[in-house]
Amino acid sequence: MASQILPLELVDRCIGSPIWVVMKASSREFTGTLVGFDDFVNMVLKDVTEYEMTPQGRKATKLKETLLNGNHIALLIPGGEGPEGASS
Amino acid sequence: MASQILPLELVDRCIGSPIWVVMKASSREFTGTLVGFDDFVNMVLKDVTEYEMTPQGRKATKLKETLLNGNHIALLIPGGEGPEGASS
Amino acid sequence: MASQILPLELVDRCIGSPIWVVMKASSREFTGTLVGFDDFVNMVLKDVTEYEMTPQGRKATKLKETLLNGNHIALLIPGGEGPEGASS
Amino acid sequence: MASQILPLELVDRCIGSPIWVVMKASSREFTGTLVGFDDFVNMVLKDVTEYEMTPQGRKATKLKETLLNGNHIALLIPGGEGPEGASS
Amino acid sequence: MASQILPLELVDRCIGSPIWVVMKASSREFTGTLVGFDDFVNMVLKDVTEYEMTPQGRKATKLKETLLNGNHIALLIPGGEGPEGASS
Amino acid sequence: MASQILPLELVDRCIGSPIWVVMKASSREFTGTLVGFDDFVNMVLKDVTEYEMTPQGRKATKLKETLLNGNHIALLIPGGEGPEGASS
Amino acid sequence: MASQILPLELVDRCIGSPIWVVMKASSREFTGTLVGFDDFVNMVLKDVTEYEMTPQGRKATKLKETLLNGNHIALLIPGGEGPEGASS
Repeated sequence: MASQILPLELVDRCIGSPIWVVMKASSREFTGTLVGFDDFVNMVLKDVTEYEMTPQGRKATKLKETLLNGNHIALLIPGGEGPEGASS
Repeated sequence: MASQILPLELVDRCIGSPIWVVMKASSREFTGTLVGFDDFVNMVLKDVTEYEMTPQGRKATKLKETLLNGNHIALLIPGGEGPEGASS
Repeated sequence: MASQILPLELVDRCIGSPIWVVMKASSREFTGTLVGFDDFVNMVLKDVTEYEMTPQGRKATKLKETLLNGNHIALLIPGGEGPEGASS
Repeated sequence: MASQILPLELVDRCIGSPIWVVMKASSREFTGTLVGFDDFVNMVLKDVTEYEMTPQGRKATKLKETLLNGNHIALLIPGGEGPEGASS
Repeated sequence: MASQILPLELVDRCIGSPIWVVMKASSREFTGTLVGFDDFVNMVLKDVTEYEMTPQGRKATKLKETLLNGNHIALLIPGGEGPEGASS
Repeated sequence: MASQILPLELVDRCIGSPIWVVMKASSREFTGTLVGFDDFVNMVLKDVTEYEMTPQGRKATKLKETLLNGNHIALLIPGGEGPEGASS
Repeated sequence: MASQILPLELVDRCIGSPIWVVMKASSREFTGTLVGFDDFVNMVLKDVTEYEMTPQGRKATKLKETLLNGNHIALLIPGGEGPEGASS
């Protein structure tokens, strides 16, 4: 087996760094600094920007600290450039 | 590993303080003072305002005490300014 | 940690008193007297009024006794004034 | 704590009696005599009437015996008058 | 307690006999002879007819043997007359 | 009790043979040779054809090898003639 | 029993190689090199392209590293040619 990076290892390496999180209901996304997580991959972010897709376009909201329910997280992207910085 | 804040630690620190809770079905949000929680992150809030998105706009309802089912909570934001106070 | 009220403690204190229950599929709500519950927060209510949102408006139905599946309960509000008595 | 009726105690008291069951997908309801149940609240009914809401109105179907998956049951009402007999 | 029939006892009594199964996504129904099941109420049927509701009406398809995922089964009706033979 | 075929026994007998799998979200179906499975009924297929229902009709795509998540499988049909070969 | 390939064995063989992942909500797909996975089939990909179906057509986004929640993965296809390279 090739050497690999376990999923929780990747999450752990992101502590203190910016990440981008996409929720299951894909109309909500978050960027912020990962402050902590647990075995259910519940996550605490700080300096958060929430992106919500509305019929009027993407809406950004600033939040200080946010706890995300791990069950509702679909994907996590280290680096945290978010839906606005992603290259198409 | 950088020092981190565990998700339940964040919830515990919010006891007695205002929080803002967004349910999975994202048309319902709550602000209020966190009175208690359990391992399933079921939560008891008091002095609650419920925000419901309806086709006629956001509707606010005052409630004294409310128990929220942890399975249906998507995110928790300490501070509790709610959907009206959040800065865009 | 500040003193807190555990979620099941709140439910237990409601035995014999009126409550208001909102189901996950938010078109169904119930008020009634809480008669019993179990660890899954399945609940038995008596003297129940069921409120169902229909395209023709809110429809109220009287029921004697009702068992609610805890998995499908989103929130519980002690006091039981229901969707009609709630102050906006 | 006031004396209470546990949810499974209520189900057990209904054995041999008519009940009314509303499924999670609320377009399906059943009335019939409760013949048995298990810890998952899977239920066996006999002399069943199934009510299905269709765009053409409520459709009733007679069934002899039916097994209902407990996961998909939202509520149970002892007495079994069903959606037609319920007082508004 | 009145004598009762446990749900799995009912399923077991149907081995070798025709049954009618309605899936959770209620647009799919199956009739056939029950060949086997397990503790998750996964089921093996043979001589199967699948009924699928389409915008063009009910479509029937003949299948020899089918394994149904128990999680997605909403109800089981012994006798197997199916959606066509049921009396309204 | 009549002699029966357990669900996993049926899956096991299909190893090396063509099968037809219908996913929960019924717009996706697969045919192919079953190469392996586990206790969660996750499945490995080879020489796969994926059928996807689109507003423009059924679309077929050839895939070499595919792993299907067992939670999202609704039914499995040995023989593998697929949605095109099934007799109506 | 014929010799078989277990699902996790297939995933393990893909470490270091390109794969194509389709999420449950089928409007999101990913291609990239599999870097790691765990028992819940959470996966780490690198050199990722995300494909999202929008009303304006398929939209591709480049991402460096991505963690996918295993619960939301419907299927995995080794080789990673993605929705654009698949032969119809």
